[in-house]
Amino acid sequence: MSGIDMATRPATPCAVDTFLAVRQATEHLARDLTPDDCMVQSMPDASPIKWHLAHTSWFFEQFVLGPAGVAPFDADYATLFNSYYVGAGPRHPRPQRGTLSRPPLDQVLAYRRHVTDAVLNELPRYDAHTLQLVRLGIEHEQQHQELILTDLKHHFFAQPLTPVYRPAPARTGQPPGAWRFIDVAGGLCEVGHAGGAFGFDNEFPRHRVWLEPYAIADRLVTETEYLAFVQDGAYEQPALWLSDGWAAREANGWQAPLYWRQDEGGDWHIFTLGGWRALQPDVPVCHVSHYEADAFARWAGARLPTEAEWEHAASALPAEHQGWHGALLEDESFHPAPVSGGAGLHQVLGNCWQWTASAYLPYPGYRVPDGTVGEYNGKFMSGQMVLKGASCATPRSHARLSYRNFFPPPARWQFTGIRLARDGHVRATA
Amino acid sequence: MSGIDMATRPATPCAVDTFLAVRQATEHLARDLTPDDCMVQSMPDASPIKWHLAHTSWFFEQFVLGPAGVAPFDADYATLFNSYYVGAGPRHPRPQRGTLSRPPLDQVLAYRRHVTDAVLNELPRYDAHTLQLVRLGIEHEQQHQELILTDLKHHFFAQPLTPVYRPAPARTGQPPGAWRFIDVAGGLCEVGHAGGAFGFDNEFPRHRVWLEPYAIADRLVTETEYLAFVQDGAYEQPALWLSDGWAAREANGWQAPLYWRQDEGGDWHIFTLGGWRALQPDVPVCHVSHYEADAFARWAGARLPTEAEWEHAASALPAEHQGWHGALLEDESFHPAPVSGGAGLHQVLGNCWQWTASAYLPYPGYRVPDGTVGEYNGKFMSGQMVLKGASCATPRSHARLSYRNFFPPPARWQFTGIRLARDGHVRATA
Amino acid sequence: MSGIDMATRPATPCAVDTFLAVRQATEHLARDLTPDDCMVQSMPDASPIKWHLAHTSWFFEQFVLGPAGVAPFDADYATLFNSYYVGAGPRHPRPQRGTLSRPPLDQVLAYRRHVTDAVLNELPRYDAHTLQLVRLGIEHEQQHQELILTDLKHHFFAQPLTPVYRPAPARTGQPPGAWRFIDVAGGLCEVGHAGGAFGFDNEFPRHRVWLEPYAIADRLVTETEYLAFVQDGAYEQPALWLSDGWAAREANGWQAPLYWRQDEGGDWHIFTLGGWRALQPDVPVCHVSHYEADAFARWAGARLPTEAEWEHAASALPAEHQGWHGALLEDESFHPAPVSGGAGLHQVLGNCWQWTASAYLPYPGYRVPDGTVGEYNGKFMSGQMVLKGASCATPRSHARLSYRNFFPPPARWQFTGIRLARDGHVRATA
Amino acid sequence: MSGIDMATRPATPCAVDTFLAVRQATEHLARDLTPDDCMVQSMPDASPIKWHLAHTSWFFEQFVLGPAGVAPFDADYATLFNSYYVGAGPRHPRPQRGTLSRPPLDQVLAYRRHVTDAVLNELPRYDAHTLQLVRLGIEHEQQHQELILTDLKHHFFAQPLTPVYRPAPARTGQPPGAWRFIDVAGGLCEVGHAGGAFGFDNEFPRHRVWLEPYAIADRLVTETEYLAFVQDGAYEQPALWLSDGWAAREANGWQAPLYWRQDEGGDWHIFTLGGWRALQPDVPVCHVSHYEADAFARWAGARLPTEAEWEHAASALPAEHQGWHGALLEDESFHPAPVSGGAGLHQVLGNCWQWTASAYLPYPGYRVPDGTVGEYNGKFMSGQMVLKGASCATPRSHARLSYRNFFPPPARWQFTGIRLARDGHVRATA
Repeated sequence: MSGIDMATRPATPCAVDTFLAVRQATEHLARDLTPDDCMVQSMPDASPIKWHLAHTSWFFEQFVLGPAGVAPFDADYATLFNSYYVGAGPRHPRPQRGTLSRPPLDQVLAYRRHVTDAVLNELPRYDAHTLQLVRLGIEHEQQHQELILTDLKHHFFAQPLTPVYRPAPARTGQPPGAWRFIDVAGGLCEVGHAGGAFGFDNEFPRHRVWLEPYAIADRLVTETEYLAFVQDGAYEQPALWLSDGWAAREANGWQAPLYWRQDEGGDWHIFTLGGWRALQPDVPVCHVSHYEADAFARWAGARLPTEAEWEHAASALPAEHQGWHGALLEDESFHPAPVSGGAGLHQVLGNCWQWTASAYLPYPGYRVPDGTVGEYNGKFMSGQMVLKGASCATPRSHARLSYRNFFPPPARWQFTGIRLARDGHVRATA
Repeated sequence: MSGIDMATRPATPCAVDTFLAVRQATEHLARDLTPDDCMVQSMPDASPIKWHLAHTSWFFEQFVLGPAGVAPFDADYATLFNSYYVGAGPRHPRPQRGTLSRPPLDQVLAYRRHVTDAVLNELPRYDAHTLQLVRLGIEHEQQHQELILTDLKHHFFAQPLTPVYRPAPARTGQPPGAWRFIDVAGGLCEVGHAGGAFGFDNEFPRHRVWLEPYAIADRLVTETEYLAFVQDGAYEQPALWLSDGWAAREANGWQAPLYWRQDEGGDWHIFTLGGWRALQPDVPVCHVSHYEADAFARWAGARLPTEAEWEHAASALPAEHQGWHGALLEDESFHPAPVSGGAGLHQVLGNCWQWTASAYLPYPGYRVPDGTVGEYNGKFMSGQMVLKGASCATPRSHARLSYRNFFPPPARWQFTGIRLARDGHVRATA
Repeated sequence: MSGIDMATRPATPCAVDTFLAVRQATEHLARDLTPDDCMVQSMPDASPIKWHLAHTSWFFEQFVLGPAGVAPFDADYATLFNSYYVGAGPRHPRPQRGTLSRPPLDQVLAYRRHVTDAVLNELPRYDAHTLQLVRLGIEHEQQHQELILTDLKHHFFAQPLTPVYRPAPARTGQPPGAWRFIDVAGGLCEVGHAGGAFGFDNEFPRHRVWLEPYAIADRLVTETEYLAFVQDGAYEQPALWLSDGWAAREANGWQAPLYWRQDEGGDWHIFTLGGWRALQPDVPVCHVSHYEADAFARWAGARLPTEAEWEHAASALPAEHQGWHGALLEDESFHPAPVSGGAGLHQVLGNCWQWTASAYLPYPGYRVPDGTVGEYNGKFMSGQMVLKGASCATPRSHARLSYRNFFPPPARWQFTGIRLARDGHVRATA
Repeated sequence: MSGIDMATRPATPCAVDTFLAVRQATEHLARDLTPDDCMVQSMPDASPIKWHLAHTSWFFEQFVLGPAGVAPFDADYATLFNSYYVGAGPRHPRPQRGTLSRPPLDQVLAYRRHVTDAVLNELPRYDAHTLQLVRLGIEHEQQHQELILTDLKHHFFAQPLTPVYRPAPARTGQPPGAWRFIDVAGGLCEVGHAGGAFGFDNEFPRHRVWLEPYAIADRLVTETEYLAFVQDGAYEQPALWLSDGWAAREANGWQAPLYWRQDEGGDWHIFTLGGWRALQPDVPVCHVSHYEADAFARWAGARLPTEAEWEHAASALPAEHQGWHGALLEDESFHPAPVSGGAGLHQVLGNCWQWTASAYLPYPGYRVPDGTVGEYNGKFMSGQMVLKGASCATPRSHARLSYRNFFPPPARWQFTGIRLARDGHVRATA
């Protein structure tokens, strides 16, 4: 989903430790999965786990090892595990990744070891440009760590047996109070990556934007709050929906978020990577499409924030209020968590990706990086919406406020939730 | 495509003359068509001419005559000729408008006369609110005048006999010089409708926007210039295209703009409402999708302007340089025309709708009008791109700089063309 | 749907009167239709009435006038009005016949007059071979007379206003007694056209077939009898259906025959060319697919007859018992009629086409006629089922016992009904 | 594909040895496959190998162990591994069998052992009816042994790496002489299973059929002979094809049989379970659809035999001339073989399934078996064509002359080949 901006940033030193930790984290995610588990492609948008394991290695072969003259582990992999890089040659068609019985899983794991070792061997001697590409490969692999979790969740739910990935204890939460809107004055603001650390090309250049006064909710919408929307008949009221959203609802038979199921007694249950669970009053709703987020906001008399409003509000607040909850490699619950702590903007990073009202388009002055790596982000700037924040499946070191995630408005299999906003009034104290 | 902003604007006095002229102009467009011609729906996005004739009358029945207590001409028409207004009750499905053999054409013309007379009778006594709705109906009908021409063109082209609508004389143009980029300083600008005259809800509120320096082309891209892009193999180079654009190109087999055909000798011909014609060096290319416009811009080392850049540049220039060429009811050639006149921004209104780089989204502070009329524009703010200007098929009195037209990026059957832009450098003289 | 067997039959004298009567009968069917009515193609399998009017003239141009050197009325029509004859050159795609606004209806009627006159002029001088082709053209036109009625019925039903074609008086029938099975001994029988009169190629050659003893119902299944099947929940019981039939039922949402609708009070109504009507206890059910006919038979503890069983049983009985009820040009009710008269096999010709258990395949020794006319029947001998009899929409002079009509098993828009059969026991008296 | 006729046949003693040998043969086929290999469903018509391994065990649980009161190995498997038996309860949707990562392969192998042991334990004590069901389960499992090979072949071909299943030595054959037609007198013949041994319900009852004189080719059409048809441009000549066949050719882009590929030098290669091979002059062509077989026959001035013609001709000849070549568990080449031996009808069983001109319909007097097992064959008697013989992938003990295999006319992934026939003349010596 992204590509480094070569022109404007200095070489990022990339420690051996970081590289190795990220490679191992990927394998850790797959450690309990059988070869059977790693084969399934449950829809064209998702990929088999085996493919993710291989593709994240291909990326280093393509952009680091190949240019450095290292012979490929297997010449066929250039095609098998290329995702969408036209500049890198032919690609096995995406919807047919589930046919890749060969190479078998153990061979893919050998491929991973080969690539890890080959990079490690030379890493101390890489020049600044190559180190940038290694860093891009690390960030790329972290993106796929999140996709491994979301694609596996989709596959396990498509499975009649709906297996449990990581057992999680039951819990019963308490309803929080109503969400509060925090006023923001706006004006001539700056958004985008400030430089000095890694960022994808699409976060650049940092630039000015004019914002009218607005207000933004202090926390995410919860499962129980979303249930009220469902129970109010929102899925039967076209007036609440964008026209495309209403059509998507009808075409897909949506009655609730993805992974929700109603039992015969009328109770709703949610499928998680820890198994089936009851709805919680304090846990953020996730797996909603942009259309559902937008309709919920309309129903609630609010709207979604623009990406600039979100980033400006989040940046203005003290870091300790940003409410991180990112579980990867830490608690492995892989589900959003309730608000913890006091006042301020909560659940900014690490719970749910948050749909914005902004289409995914280039920033003013954006430049596509040269070469094949330029295909990382730029060519997808059409037909998608920006999501801000980071989810419970995002590696913690991968998240930052200037991050621009993007998905088409009907997508629901990511951990996507809702933060509300509304037009504001300039106040003396703002 | 739009709806009046009731809250913020004063009642617009609407002369009997204007109403009558617009109603007659619609009928004038259909004057030479047979009942057979008026039946065809050549694709789900287009409608039969007979349906347009009826729907523009339904609009007055629904929003003006009905609320005033006038009995409907035929109770079935409420469903048959409702387009997409859920608040107005059930709708005959759009893709099946071509099955509407009943009512026959002469009955629809009688319906038109009935509605025209009923409105005329009471027009002098309408209150301000009703007059606003009459004005909205007039603007709505003008939008359908354009659709009558574009839908008919699509149908005649789908016809094996490709009939001529209005015969046009042959011409041979001269190549213009290269396009020139006009520098614009940007800064904190204002865009949107300034009030005081009719505007659709989506043009409001007028608001501030920050623009970095940019440059905008003084004229539209021509047919011959676009041919160079085709002949350079652009339709075979994925690197020039957005990912969705490349997929659309492949799925639809695009090799050139809609209505272009290559003969066995390799020459290209263009189907127009005046019949088949040779490519012209000075006539703006039209009937390209947003994807093609975007790819052309990339190929030319430029980009598309944002809607704010377009409107700001056009607003800053003297009115006599805006290069109107709108043919409706005047010369009836219904095809873009070459640049006429001297320096400045040409072909601003009246040649082609001009794709922008902006997604069609609400302006900051936008409010959907209350009631069913609120469905006019707001619910379509998803998945579409803004087009600025007006085309050779747009009624002249319907065009203005704040107008926001919108279509999905693959749409090609409107008169859609290309104006280039690029990032600028602040200069002392800008 | 068929083609003459040139090799085996003598020239059929074809009177001027017959030719003229059939041409006029076609125009009579369209006499009250507007140009709008004649434009609609309500599904890809159906054609606009205007196309039928033109295509039946094209057939004479292609096979009679053209070979005789008569210049075409309009050179474009060769493509526009060719149906599926690859040997006759390119064809306008079938699913796009609804785009044929040009030529307009009056021009098509002029085309008809031109063809009628041109044939009439030369008819007295045609040789035997040409007379055979004229006769084929007449039979072909009679087939299209039936299609005009079935396609118009489909279009009028797809129309929200469901217009009436020929008003018909209301009636209330009396329930007949139960159907009776007539025993037939079978053995080595002969079926197929015996020669001496016109027949399509697919009815030849007459040949022997071995039949085990069987029994065949004396009349067709009625609307009320079929309602009992519906009310017994048959559309929810997969065990009653062929696997393909169950899938078709599901894919199409079938709950009853085509043209049946249940009102809010639970009563069923049937759309006919005479308008909406209540179900009748004595009127044959029609507009069922082969799958529904087969499922009904299974539910009733019976089966469908094979085509040979049907033809052998019908041929063995006195002509006066064959129960003709063909309405075309006579009473114009265009709906099946109750049994009239006494014992014997009723409703053989002129009510409903009767689905058989036989796939449409070539008879032993069948030969495709030489030349383009050979495409009439032979290439369709795959994936379709044979129907015997003739319907209320079949011209009387067009019906005969050896006729082999054929449609794919899901087709429902023809007048297709059900006659039951079952395996028999050899009895001394049979 | 079939079900036992309970009513008419005596109990078949079923030896422990046979049961065990067939169970082991299935596992033998999968012995070298990885869990990854066993997961893939390369198209909706094919199934993963793991599913075949489980479903053949489910069959014994459903029809033998369950009725005998043996507890299920896992209650979920009743749904997961039911194919199409509505009477046996819900079914996991066929097109989603590729999502069945759980149970993993080793668990399915444990399931197999459990079922094998449970049946073996009780087999000596089963009554005649249960023994019939065991026998049906054995024949059912043999059908799936063939499907394991054909589905795996399809999957390996869909794989970019096109792996080899069982390496086979290269060979170069010699062109045989032209095929010879053997005259058969016909008359009143008998076909169908004669009883006394196992047969599926669809082979019963044996019955009389009248055959006109015909001739049948002494061997199958070879790869080189089929290449001549390809090179003659047959895939571009609609006149050679059934209408549905031409449409299927176009929709699927067929240019040659499935598994044929042309290299850049113009040479054709064939993918087999032994890897890629050159075309052979003496090896029967296979993997053609019914449409291609029919078109080839028309091109060759012949036709396909009816199923009765095929069976009558094969039955009349001495058993030693029936030319068995069935490789399963013997040489494991799994590809058709050349003619071996002298005069007579060759390649009757064990090379290719042979498309006939007969639709798959019930024999006169056919009765569906009672109960859920009745779904085995009867409900598929629609829209399919009969194939006679047996292929190189058919277990030898599973083949017989009365066997009726059936597939839809476009199916190509089975080992389906061509034997020609033509109408005959009664000769004194016949």
